[in-house]
Amino acid sequence: MNSESAVTINLASLKRLLIGRPLKSTELGEQKLTKTKALAILSSDALSSVAYGPEQILLVLMTIGMAAFWYSIPIGIGVLILLLALILSYRQIIFAYPHGGGAYVVSKENLGLFPGLVAGGSLLVDYILTVAVSVSAGTDAITSAFPSLHEHTVIIAVAFVVFITILNLRGVTESASILAYPVYLFVLALFILIGVGLYNVVTGKLSPDLHAPVGTPIAGISLFLLLRAFASGSSALTGVEAISNAIPNFKDPAPNNAVKTLMAMGTLLAVLFSGIVYLVYYYGIAPGPEVTVLSQLAEQVFGRNLMYFFVQGTTALILILAANTGYSAFPLLAVNLAKDKFIPRMFTVRGDRLGYSNGIIFLGVLSIVLIIAFKGKTEHLIPLYAVGVFIPFTLAQTGMIVKWVREKPQGWMLKLFINATGALISFIVTCMFFLTKFNQVWPVLVFLPLIIIWFYRIRKHYDAVGEQLSLATCEPALPVEGNVFILPVSGITHVVENSINYARSLDAGQIIAVYVPFEREDEERFEQKWKKWMPEIRLVTLHSPYRSIIQPLSKFIDSVQRKASQSNYNVTVIVPQFIPKKGWHNILHNQTSLLMRAHLLYRKDVIVTTVPFHLKK
Amino acid sequence: MNSESAVTINLASLKRLLIGRPLKSTELGEQKLTKTKALAILSSDALSSVAYGPEQILLVLMTIGMAAFWYSIPIGIGVLILLLALILSYRQIIFAYPHGGGAYVVSKENLGLFPGLVAGGSLLVDYILTVAVSVSAGTDAITSAFPSLHEHTVIIAVAFVVFITILNLRGVTESASILAYPVYLFVLALFILIGVGLYNVVTGKLSPDLHAPVGTPIAGISLFLLLRAFASGSSALTGVEAISNAIPNFKDPAPNNAVKTLMAMGTLLAVLFSGIVYLVYYYGIAPGPEVTVLSQLAEQVFGRNLMYFFVQGTTALILILAANTGYSAFPLLAVNLAKDKFIPRMFTVRGDRLGYSNGIIFLGVLSIVLIIAFKGKTEHLIPLYAVGVFIPFTLAQTGMIVKWVREKPQGWMLKLFINATGALISFIVTCMFFLTKFNQVWPVLVFLPLIIIWFYRIRKHYDAVGEQLSLATCEPALPVEGNVFILPVSGITHVVENSINYARSLDAGQIIAVYVPFEREDEERFEQKWKKWMPEIRLVTLHSPYRSIIQPLSKFIDSVQRKASQSNYNVTVIVPQFIPKKGWHNILHNQTSLLMRAHLLYRKDVIVTTVPFHLKK
Repeated sequence: MNSESAVTINLASLKRLLIGRPLKSTELGEQKLTKTKALAILSSDALSSVAYGPEQILLVLMTIGMAAFWYSIPIGIGVLILLLALILSYRQIIFAYPHGGGAYVVSKENLGLFPGLVAGGSLLVDYILTVAVSVSAGTDAITSAFPSLHEHTVIIAVAFVVFITILNLRGVTESASILAYPVYLFVLALFILIGVGLYNVVTGKLSPDLHAPVGTPIAGISLFLLLRAFASGSSALTGVEAISNAIPNFKDPAPNNAVKTLMAMGTLLAVLFSGIVYLVYYYGIAPGPEVTVLSQLAEQVFGRNLMYFFVQGTTALILILAANTGYSAFPLLAVNLAKDKFIPRMFTVRGDRLGYSNGIIFLGVLSIVLIIAFKGKTEHLIPLYAVGVFIPFTLAQTGMIVKWVREKPQGWMLKLFINATGALISFIVTCMFFLTKFNQVWPVLVFLPLIIIWFYRIRKHYDAVGEQLSLATCEPALPVEGNVFILPVSGITHVVENSINYARSLDAGQIIAVYVPFEREDEERFEQKWKKWMPEIRLVTLHSPYRSIIQPLSKFIDSVQRKASQSNYNVTVIVPQFIPKKGWHNILHNQTSLLMRAHLLYRKDVIVTTVPFHLKK
Repeated sequence: MNSESAVTINLASLKRLLIGRPLKSTELGEQKLTKTKALAILSSDALSSVAYGPEQILLVLMTIGMAAFWYSIPIGIGVLILLLALILSYRQIIFAYPHGGGAYVVSKENLGLFPGLVAGGSLLVDYILTVAVSVSAGTDAITSAFPSLHEHTVIIAVAFVVFITILNLRGVTESASILAYPVYLFVLALFILIGVGLYNVVTGKLSPDLHAPVGTPIAGISLFLLLRAFASGSSALTGVEAISNAIPNFKDPAPNNAVKTLMAMGTLLAVLFSGIVYLVYYYGIAPGPEVTVLSQLAEQVFGRNLMYFFVQGTTALILILAANTGYSAFPLLAVNLAKDKFIPRMFTVRGDRLGYSNGIIFLGVLSIVLIIAFKGKTEHLIPLYAVGVFIPFTLAQTGMIVKWVREKPQGWMLKLFINATGALISFIVTCMFFLTKFNQVWPVLVFLPLIIIWFYRIRKHYDAVGEQLSLATCEPALPVEGNVFILPVSGITHVVENSINYARSLDAGQIIAVYVPFEREDEERFEQKWKKWMPEIRLVTLHSPYRSIIQPLSKFIDSVQRKASQSNYNVTVIVPQFIPKKGWHNILHNQTSLLMRAHLLYRKDVIVTTVPFHLKK
């Protein structure tokens, strides 16, 4: 076995170890998700948001003073209403688009191509941000617990991304099995936290520590500030669209299962979010610079015991796993865009394990780039990420409004009302982000147009190619009348003999051997040797004073081709290629033939035939 | 103009801007060096050593006490004797080997192949060390003057290497013109320093500050210590072999000009070295942790005025330019080794500006790697570097002894005496390095054997290739009886039509179209479409449940080839290749054909014909 194939075999077995044996296309059904697994895999992003959503509301209110904290209760209710609207409208989207698609498909079909691409483009970027932001946040939680790891933040975060990427390359079911535990443990931990917290409240074990009771008039409060707090709080709702994108991953009947999963997720999210908002208010907790609100709450409810660390640990885990939502949704969105020819076709190819591996790898690589570029400090990407969610939310709901008005199915007025509410609130939240956090969200105004321009350029190219390839649209190619073979030679060797024998066996045309000497004496010497050896093959020598082989050869080919094309002759250049037995031997041979081949193929319109000469030693 | 050729043109004009217009092979003579330029370009390494050589002696003596400093005078005289022996013996080497070669050629011709390779291998590594060490030392001198630059040491050093590499790619004369000024300015600065210093001594303006007069008996001194100090001091002699390697770069009569340059360099070196050693002793200067001995001497002679900074500045410059010696000698040594087939053939190719550009680039890249790996702190590579010089010194001199004994020309006894002295002292210095600084020089015992093993492996490969290619040694190739063309197709398009037309025009054999469907339904559908479109071409479908194209195709080719080889048929695979108009379009097309071509060429013994399909839009 030669060293090269040994390397390939090792690479192959490493791949198999990491990713698993290849699966047949017919095994696709077995890879689909049950409701329990789907809930775990698709809701980690949304559920993990409760770890920071309530805190975001308090941070805005704190700019007025702690007395304003009571506003978190009505704002929390506002967020719950938005959640309800979103869940109900995505329920309608799932039934209306049972093959999946989410914001891109819904906007495209109802509002037109451009709004669809806006939605698709912002989601595409958003999933990359999801991965980078949530893995960084989870890593932060870990390094807060173990400060000695702090200087390795970037490496740890990158390792997590690599780990999640490998899990996803193995396939959705297998990653779901591993990822289900942390998600359910997190839900369990928060249920216990909220349960014990409420028990303390109800039994009066704890006297409330309200900074101000609900309804206290507060000086300086404004509608602008409240809306800003509301927008911040609704960042807890990112991730609810994941299920509607991932319907194809569900077991049949997919839409029904997806809707049930969506409702379960919505209920969990509502209970956790409102429980935390209420308890934080009741316990009088204020956001601190170093401890999260959730951590303070857990400490006050349990004390610093095992349960506290259980809450903290599962929170860190779910923040990291929130990245996985991106991995489920990104490749499917990419497939939809690629099928419509707006992004490269390679995103539609299923890998060994039937996942869309190109999308998975692309997502992993780009989020690693983001993590490294921002040195693991991706917190200030959060608003950018939130606005990238609410733009497609708004577009999708608006699309549904148009759909109901156009189709008017039974009970369309209620459906219209639900989507209109969702669209309105999402639109307000989007506007709030632009009004109140413009210095953090402006990049979306730069990259979104760029992405859309590229979408159109790629589509234009594919359309042009399709037209050129189609047999229907153009005349048949002219028949080939004959052939000219050009054979660059570097000496009188077996390699040359080999190539000449091949050219002769085709016996279809003229053969011209070409020699490029750097010096005059060499020129004559070689011509004489050639005449003795192979007088029947015509030899052309091209003296090259600047010691370039490709340049004079290229000129010669041009002139042959001009003549050949007049009489419909094809020009074929026969390039011999050494194939050494060992990989490292390649550096011992001038790579002229490789360069020549690349040059001829991309620059000239000639056929290039490579005749291998396998070295046996 | 398409974007790809635009990129190439930009690259080409950038290259021309940096390196200059290409030169014809016949312009080689004009690129040769006059004596003045040669002295500047080839002696910067040797001359720069006086900046640290005397200090090395004092550092060893200081381990006994400052009273031992008077030994620097006899040790300095010892170094001068060694210098004289080296200069005289290299003079003899230049006349004996007028085509250049230095230690490698001399050792190989007189002592045998193995000693030659030892000399060549250690010099090869040594020139890389020269570049890394001297550029780092010069950068240190600069960052000592401007401490704010200190954190950028590596970048500055790398920038200098890049700069010197570009200079050398422009060609030797042009780099000599730029490099001559700093070298002569350094010599001028040191002459003034020594002159003024001696004037002060002679006029009695300064009372001597001797720690102990010459001849004072010192307790604790040992022969071992003195030899160690001597070995350290002789690190000032690295670089004297450069001229003997570079004879081909001299204007005719090359050997005479080279010898005159060598003598001039020896004289300069002797004057500067002994002047500095004497003044340092007379002024009672001791090496300090932060200031160099030379800097202290300049300060005491001139005070901290303009002349002081002139000495410091030219010292920094010449330390950096010492790297240039490596650039002159390395490519020429590499040519000698490559001509003997011990290193890849590419080192014999002259670039656009007639320099051996591969050697120059290789040297630049490897020294940048060293600088980055050692973070610019290459000081402790100095002993390694010195031992790498004295091993070839010893071998070359010993080679000359053998030559004189063998040839016995007129006056051979004197010649023998000179070379024997040189060989003996060099041998002692080499041994001293191993005895006294083993923990710094041991790597030479690891990499030298490795390099020599690689030399032999590369030679063996080239010999094996030569044998396989030679028409004399093997039987003529079997005539080709016929051809089978295999044509992988991905659909019914113009591209396929194009390839089939070509295969037919060769009218030399059977054509088999191969289609690899991933799904059963697709298989039948395609077979029917094909039958309608091109019934006369045989279609084979290879169902691929694992969605790999290359694997089933590869198996099919194997089976065709087994049959074909029985009846001496050639198998040609015709691979169509999209050539898009714009470079970025390439990512929009699956690179299957590229992968397929690489796989077929390197793994199978088939001929691969690439039929381009140039997209027009």
